[in-house]
Amino acid sequence: MPQARKPTLEYMNRNSVPAYAAPAPKAPLERTTIERREPGAHDIVIDIKFAGICHSDIHTVRAEWGDGGHFPIVPGHEIAGVVSEVGSEVTRYAVGDRVGVGCFVDSCRECENCRAGLQQYCTGELGQVGTYNAVGRDGVATQGGYSTHLVIDENYALSIPDSLPLDAAAPLLCAGITLYSPLAHWKAGPGKKVAVVGLGGLGHMGVKIAHAMGAEVTVLSQSLRKQEDGLRLGADHYYATSDPETFEELANTFDLIVNTVSAQLDLNAYLGLLRTDGTLVQLGAPEHPLPVAPFALIGNRRSFAGSLIGGLQETQEMLDFCGEHGITSEIEVITADRINEAYERVLASDVRYRFVIDTATI
Amino acid sequence: MPQARKPTLEYMNRNSVPAYAAPAPKAPLERTTIERREPGAHDIVIDIKFAGICHSDIHTVRAEWGDGGHFPIVPGHEIAGVVSEVGSEVTRYAVGDRVGVGCFVDSCRECENCRAGLQQYCTGELGQVGTYNAVGRDGVATQGGYSTHLVIDENYALSIPDSLPLDAAAPLLCAGITLYSPLAHWKAGPGKKVAVVGLGGLGHMGVKIAHAMGAEVTVLSQSLRKQEDGLRLGADHYYATSDPETFEELANTFDLIVNTVSAQLDLNAYLGLLRTDGTLVQLGAPEHPLPVAPFALIGNRRSFAGSLIGGLQETQEMLDFCGEHGITSEIEVITADRINEAYERVLASDVRYRFVIDTATI
Repeated sequence: MPQARKPTLEYMNRNSVPAYAAPAPKAPLERTTIERREPGAHDIVIDIKFAGICHSDIHTVRAEWGDGGHFPIVPGHEIAGVVSEVGSEVTRYAVGDRVGVGCFVDSCRECENCRAGLQQYCTGELGQVGTYNAVGRDGVATQGGYSTHLVIDENYALSIPDSLPLDAAAPLLCAGITLYSPLAHWKAGPGKKVAVVGLGGLGHMGVKIAHAMGAEVTVLSQSLRKQEDGLRLGADHYYATSDPETFEELANTFDLIVNTVSAQLDLNAYLGLLRTDGTLVQLGAPEHPLPVAPFALIGNRRSFAGSLIGGLQETQEMLDFCGEHGITSEIEVITADRINEAYERVLASDVRYRFVIDTATI
Repeated sequence: MPQARKPTLEYMNRNSVPAYAAPAPKAPLERTTIERREPGAHDIVIDIKFAGICHSDIHTVRAEWGDGGHFPIVPGHEIAGVVSEVGSEVTRYAVGDRVGVGCFVDSCRECENCRAGLQQYCTGELGQVGTYNAVGRDGVATQGGYSTHLVIDENYALSIPDSLPLDAAAPLLCAGITLYSPLAHWKAGPGKKVAVVGLGGLGHMGVKIAHAMGAEVTVLSQSLRKQEDGLRLGADHYYATSDPETFEELANTFDLIVNTVSAQLDLNAYLGLLRTDGTLVQLGAPEHPLPVAPFALIGNRRSFAGSLIGGLQETQEMLDFCGEHGITSEIEVITADRINEAYERVLASDVRYRFVIDTATI
């Protein structure tokens, strides 16, 4: 139905769409045009409204994760928009539906993890196909959400509840699920003491979600600079980790600690804050290995674990949970021409708490 | 009843008993005499028949765990014997009962962990009172099982099933429970793939117990030297970790890995052998922290955990389980005058798989 397609096109070639891309490692992002695939029978076309800026975007375009990368790269995996077109076999979505896309757009669909709804840990040959800087099953490099349109298999898109504004909901697709998944998996809830290390883009989502789950929430931040914010967002307690007394006072306290900080923390000090059978979950990935003192684990049957975003079903569950509890990210909406400036501010921790690009300005 | 007590006494002072002790750090053990407390209303007197030699004994008398120690030290926390006397209020045991003592002889009994049956993680002021080299609630240093008699509160002794010989059952009190507890806690059983790293005093118990629990058991040992033994003890597979191909072939395989090796292994290589949601449990305590690469955890929601022996209830459960399945340690019984020689052989890994002292020879 070419008639229906026309409104989504900006160029003669209906699949060419504007985007912001990093042309090469460490280069500033600039406006460009990319090709989206012709939507197939199971695809939907999303008219992207907003795209969050995640620290991973910066790591990737600066090639700090060491894999070179498929440049030019259009980052963005916190995507919120509206369905503008559906393939002939699409059943889950209709034109006009509010949808989101997170960190992956495909996976093998056949491995044990995919079948268990743990697509983020896909072990198939295809693997989890990142929303950008990955290669899809068609052999073409994927490009992310700093763009006006995206074509995606309907099964890899998520439904955004009507109660949530699209701009502030966008970061739920990465920051939200990155916290929701470990909090749900390790059973944060009433009677549980949960600590969130770091009050940034990830951490502030952790505070909101853990609080909504009914847990007693403590923020462990370098200083008390954001204490007022933390308490407003739902934290019951707020401690400065620059104060050595924090580690004495809170020894053997927490059932669960979620560490959103990617810097090289003294992990053993934090492990000492866990109760017997407590778990510290690492969400950010520091560049170097973290030295773990076995006695810190053995003496209380503690665990040090890792967690990566969430599966499709769990991401939908998170969005529905956030819809019910009115949870969104604290955001600062920017125009696309300020992306590079926003990157500098993210690196300087000068954002409360997430930048979101208004893609109408691309 | 002095008449009843007489048979348990060797000296004029009925509480003086022969033992083997290390008089000072790093000194060889020598025969001596120690004082046991006068049994109270809730105490039982155990006529020790056998005491296993645990690597911890050696670490302690050589002051390798850095706490100085309450020398002279009588090691031994794998104790099997027969009740020879009971206090007036004792209800659990009668004279003649076969009993064991493990790594602790008391704890605060009031903290949350004690009340939950996790006495090994006692957080009370008294803490878990080690069977030796600790200070009991009477303020007196505890002395272990390389001795003929022990006085202990009935609640901290365990019942040894009649089906198990006392000599081969003794090591169950430490080596057995050290493996049983994590295998039970992390649910080794039918359909689960369990790897045991190291086939020594601890590891061989892990193979037997995990096999009896119904798990598919793989031994990961430095070489194939003990392969025949491992398979005989219940392992389904046996791999040499000196062969790099082992780590490729077994990537993403195990639900649970129990690491009995105290040396500085390349932990990240072993973490790579875990499936999604798998756990590697550290049982031995290397001297230095182990570097953990967060990506090895994050990419598959893996956990690195620690576990320490087991609580009283679980230790009894373990003994009953071993009684049902006819599980004991593979042992070499020695006379007391060979303790120092046995220590050297333990350090040279020259024992299959546990030395047990016949305390009648002290």
